[in-house]
Amino acid sequence: MKHKQTEDGNFLIKLEPGDRVINAINSIMEYLNIKAGLITGIGAVNNPTLGYFDINQKKYIEKTLTGNFEVLSLNGNIAQKEEKPFCHIHVILGDNEMKTFGGHLIEMEVTVTLELIVIPLKENLRRTPDETTSLWLWNL
Amino acid sequence: MKHKQTEDGNFLIKLEPGDRVINAINSIMEYLNIKAGLITGIGAVNNPTLGYFDINQKKYIEKTLTGNFEVLSLNGNIAQKEEKPFCHIHVILGDNEMKTFGGHLIEMEVTVTLELIVIPLKENLRRTPDETTSLWLWNL
Amino acid sequence: MKHKQTEDGNFLIKLEPGDRVINAINSIMEYLNIKAGLITGIGAVNNPTLGYFDINQKKYIEKTLTGNFEVLSLNGNIAQKEEKPFCHIHVILGDNEMKTFGGHLIEMEVTVTLELIVIPLKENLRRTPDETTSLWLWNL
Repeated sequence: MKHKQTEDGNFLIKLEPGDRVINAINSIMEYLNIKAGLITGIGAVNNPTLGYFDINQKKYIEKTLTGNFEVLSLNGNIAQKEEKPFCHIHVILGDNEMKTFGGHLIEMEVTVTLELIVIPLKENLRRTPDETTSLWLWNL
Repeated sequence: MKHKQTEDGNFLIKLEPGDRVINAINSIMEYLNIKAGLITGIGAVNNPTLGYFDINQKKYIEKTLTGNFEVLSLNGNIAQKEEKPFCHIHVILGDNEMKTFGGHLIEMEVTVTLELIVIPLKENLRRTPDETTSLWLWNL
Repeated sequence: MKHKQTEDGNFLIKLEPGDRVINAINSIMEYLNIKAGLITGIGAVNNPTLGYFDINQKKYIEKTLTGNFEVLSLNGNIAQKEEKPFCHIHVILGDNEMKTFGGHLIEMEVTVTLELIVIPLKENLRRTPDETTSLWLWNL
């Protein structure tokens, strides 16, 4: 993983083969002390584990896809959960027939590269537990 | 719906269960007097109505999907249409098998949460009618 | 193609029927002398050629889809490749049944409109050749 802050205060983050995406983003956000932000990116990964939130069961159904995929869309945000940066990311992936799959990102591993741009937001955005869903939601 | 302006002038908008997305975004943009902007978000919704523009018929084909979906990607922009804010949004949704669907967003209802970030643009961006397509397009 | 810089330094770019997307974006980025940036957009296109990077063969598998599609998501970045702006873009497209397809964008032609927003980044972001993959990757 490499990163660089631009002159106007945004961040370029390049994840490299073998990097685990959620783990790497949370680490670098903590290192950079970013309390809120918008994150977007494109690249290529393998064996992604995706989630779908089941409202009745109040938990994520997880599914791991096998193989190599293009990251067609990676969108999410960074907030604070119990004093640590927490990224909430949804992805859409593409296979070699241009078919698409997607979900809440649990984890995935970079194969070729993952080019991320983070736009920090000047705000102490926090997540707090929501009783109805059992999820940690934005506390505005 | 809750919203907060960050110190650097962007907006965090949290839509809550039962909120209708297009309706809520147009309302809050009017309330905040935002004349142009970029909007992005992730969350979960149900029973979305999506559109596909048929060039020959010069109108949107609409389709309503039944059930609960993750909002994997919500991308769009805000402009002025006849002196009122108008959001143009495309979405990609995911089901419990990580399959994806998408279209021009007509409307959908939030189930769990929808976390939106709006980056306002300092520009009086306007939409005006386009004769060829019968759509209201950006007037640059 | 029309473009306008907003007061806060971002760019609105409207591609018009017949415009070829990659070609148009590279041209306008060169004209505007943008060395790094984030690009996002929505619109409608036809006959897109998409790519999937085959790691073993170290080259893109290409596929051209026939027909008209909504551009549900267009995400990417602009960097310098051999002193010229180079855009790296991934797209997700939707058909008249709200089914989705996607890949690395090789090229596609605008039908109705393509509404792009470019957020420039103050950074001389460069791509240099990567031996392992034979791709030009971010050099941070």
